Amino acid sequence: MKHIDVKEIVTSKKYVGSEVTVCGWVRTSRNSKSVAFVELNDGTSLKNIQIVVEKGDGDFKEPRVGMSLKVVGNVVEGRNNTVEINTVPENITVLGDCPTDYPLQKKGHSLEFLRSMPHLRSRTNTFNAVWRVRSVLAAALHRYFQNHNYVYINTPLITGSDCEGAGEMFQVTTNGYTTEFRNEEEYYANDFFGRKAGLSVSGQLEGEMAATAMGKIYTFGPSFRAENSNTPKHLAEFWHIEPEVAFAELDDVIEIAEDMLKYVIGQLLELCPDEIKFFDAHFEKGLKSRLEELISHDFGRVTYTEAIELLKNSGENFVYPVEWGCDLQTEHERYISEKVFKKAVFVTDYPKEIKSFYMKQNPDGKTVAAVDLLVPGVGEIIGGSEREADYDKLVSAMQERGMNLDLYSDYLDLRKFGSVPHGGFGLGFERLIMYTTGMANIRDVILYPRTVGSIR
Amino acid sequence: MKHIDVKEIVTSKKYVGSEVTVCGWVRTSRNSKSVAFVELNDGTSLKNIQIVVEKGDGDFKEPRVGMSLKVVGNVVEGRNNTVEINTVPENITVLGDCPTDYPLQKKGHSLEFLRSMPHLRSRTNTFNAVWRVRSVLAAALHRYFQNHNYVYINTPLITGSDCEGAGEMFQVTTNGYTTEFRNEEEYYANDFFGRKAGLSVSGQLEGEMAATAMGKIYTFGPSFRAENSNTPKHLAEFWHIEPEVAFAELDDVIEIAEDMLKYVIGQLLELCPDEIKFFDAHFEKGLKSRLEELISHDFGRVTYTEAIELLKNSGENFVYPVEWGCDLQTEHERYISEKVFKKAVFVTDYPKEIKSFYMKQNPDGKTVAAVDLLVPGVGEIIGGSEREADYDKLVSAMQERGMNLDLYSDYLDLRKFGSVPHGGFGLGFERLIMYTTGMANIRDVILYPRTVGSIR
Repeated sequence: MKHIDVKEIVTSKKYVGSEVTVCGWVRTSRNSKSVAFVELNDGTSLKNIQIVVEKGDGDFKEPRVGMSLKVVGNVVEGRNNTVEINTVPENITVLGDCPTDYPLQKKGHSLEFLRSMPHLRSRTNTFNAVWRVRSVLAAALHRYFQNHNYVYINTPLITGSDCEGAGEMFQVTTNGYTTEFRNEEEYYANDFFGRKAGLSVSGQLEGEMAATAMGKIYTFGPSFRAENSNTPKHLAEFWHIEPEVAFAELDDVIEIAEDMLKYVIGQLLELCPDEIKFFDAHFEKGLKSRLEELISHDFGRVTYTEAIELLKNSGENFVYPVEWGCDLQTEHERYISEKVFKKAVFVTDYPKEIKSFYMKQNPDGKTVAAVDLLVPGVGEIIGGSEREADYDKLVSAMQERGMNLDLYSDYLDLRKFGSVPHGGFGLGFERLIMYTTGMANIRDVILYPRTVGSIR
Repeated sequence: MKHIDVKEIVTSKKYVGSEVTVCGWVRTSRNSKSVAFVELNDGTSLKNIQIVVEKGDGDFKEPRVGMSLKVVGNVVEGRNNTVEINTVPENITVLGDCPTDYPLQKKGHSLEFLRSMPHLRSRTNTFNAVWRVRSVLAAALHRYFQNHNYVYINTPLITGSDCEGAGEMFQVTTNGYTTEFRNEEEYYANDFFGRKAGLSVSGQLEGEMAATAMGKIYTFGPSFRAENSNTPKHLAEFWHIEPEVAFAELDDVIEIAEDMLKYVIGQLLELCPDEIKFFDAHFEKGLKSRLEELISHDFGRVTYTEAIELLKNSGENFVYPVEWGCDLQTEHERYISEKVFKKAVFVTDYPKEIKSFYMKQNPDGKTVAAVDLLVPGVGEIIGGSEREADYDKLVSAMQERGMNLDLYSDYLDLRKFGSVPHGGFGLGFERLIMYTTGMANIRDVILYPRTVGSIR
């Protein structure tokens, strides 16, 4: 079906004066005596194209909302620097009818109502804009890393290691419920992989293996957490970007994170002006200037120890008390970024007890070379670190935590054969979309959200 | 650690005459009386950079294979249009030692041997080249779709529908082996999602929901098949590209597939000349010209019915007999593309009995608007179709197959509310990498292969 994307017609004047074929769904229509106006949207753009139908003497049936049409007509300039298409009833073909029980009628719907129809909500302006932002950000992330000589790798989703976060891991099995086996051992020995397997919570360990060969790598794929938390910020299945870089120390990791984030948000402002304007108008007043400020200022930087002092001296009444050694809660993170720095801020050098075994141990013996990036409104958006490159130090950190070294022999090999300073970070893709659109519930930035007790 | 990627130095002359810092791993080294030569690789390029060490009077210990070094030196022109770095022992820092039991010594290793060490094999030339091709192809696919107004979407991996290929689906559970529940119902009611869940074999159904809202979409993510087949072509976890396009008929789907494939392979030839030369020399003689021919000729096109006639009249002794209605086997597919057409060929309009319920029924009542793309050497690389857009026809195809319509009410809604002609296809990413590198085993084109009985 030869036709032209509505996006191509509404974003330039080049089709003015030409006859074109467009296809799309009817968003609204209104009828007058001699002319009908139909707003058609084909999904390629947030903007509709207006079809002006010269009804003539003929019998023109006003198309219903949701119907799909094919229209042949002439592109002309409309009011306010827009373009529209002039046509006659004979040049309109109905591709698919739409009954009056179509749930998306003209009026606005709550996000909650729309969540009950994931297969139709993408036909609203809001989700049209969210999915386009998501797509443009994803492409910008790929572009950033490709332009800087990173290699895109796909770390395994099904994993046999139940490293970190074992308690939060989904199992993958072809057995499921069965009474066929006498015990656990027999159950897993007869499973697809011949052993217990799960869904990966992070590609970092395999990312390190790739980075210490390819130099600079990034992953962009799903991660899974079987966390029993029903909040507007948690998903059981989310998308994750995890760059990992050889020959890099903590300062390099921080520089990359800032540079990457500024690039992709800059690209978003450039490539999705209509969408950002839409979110600014309907979801978060001031969004656009917040993003513009983010990319035009240096991010702040503070150590965990300094942050604790700032919080203790803040005079604020926090729900969770603040003491050196405690984990920062969202209220603390937001205070630091929103009240103290009023911008994005890196917090570095956390107590080793509250961070992972693989983080580089600082000379003070108390902290590790970890970094979290906190942003106003959301809190933590990136978490990373320099990794411990010293074999003996890594082994003792693992032993302190009672870990089984045998399960990590491949990982330890990286510190045995040509070990290098290296580091990386993880960016939760849905958190980035929330931050750049002002959408407040993570269920509204992924096509089919997966959360505890809910799958559709 | 400020340093310059080896790729930047070896692909241009712009650093000649400058002092630079490079980091990398020692691939080989040789020593003479006054000079030592060290081949250093940092993973960003297939090419090493040669370090020429003027030993002077000092005591210079020849670095061992696998060690990591930081080198400061001057870039000079070498022989055969290359560049190299001149330095002295004082400007070489050992970042990480490498003991003599390092498994990757100078000599070549079999792919099978390397499969036993997935964490180290990426440090060989072969895998350096495979991962770079993989990355460049992935980026080119994103670029192709983004440039054509497609929206990148992420369809769910964990799914509650056990549609197609239910027998081949992994289950996802937080229960696993347990004797806690009295029966199956209780087991799944108490599982994480409150019901039975599995890993998706395809994002197509959700892709159709997005395409009938956003116009043109593509997925690029993992798919899972719990198939009990241990062949060089099957993975339990593979990456899948699935574009889906509204306002498109079978001919449009075919045009997109050909255009996309030619674009990404053209990009590969342009961006990875060293890698393609390497594979041509070491894995498949004639690879480069095969790829060049592919992108410069129109793909062939034949109907299934014509293909059956060609096969019957071929005089070949096939293992699987050929009769109208049979599924084409790899031997048939390869005969068609390698012997008859000698190029890539689309086979269309298959018998409805051997294809899926969602494919558009042709007017002949016997065939559906399906398409497979067959390529020499590999066989099927793409499978797609126009989808059935007519509600009643879709329902009867589902009823003929004994499917439970209630599980598909969302999918059927797409044919109720503004249905449009639409179609798409699936491309197995690893198959594409095999085809463009000449690698014969799918385990060698993915970082950590997952196959029946094997997970590491």
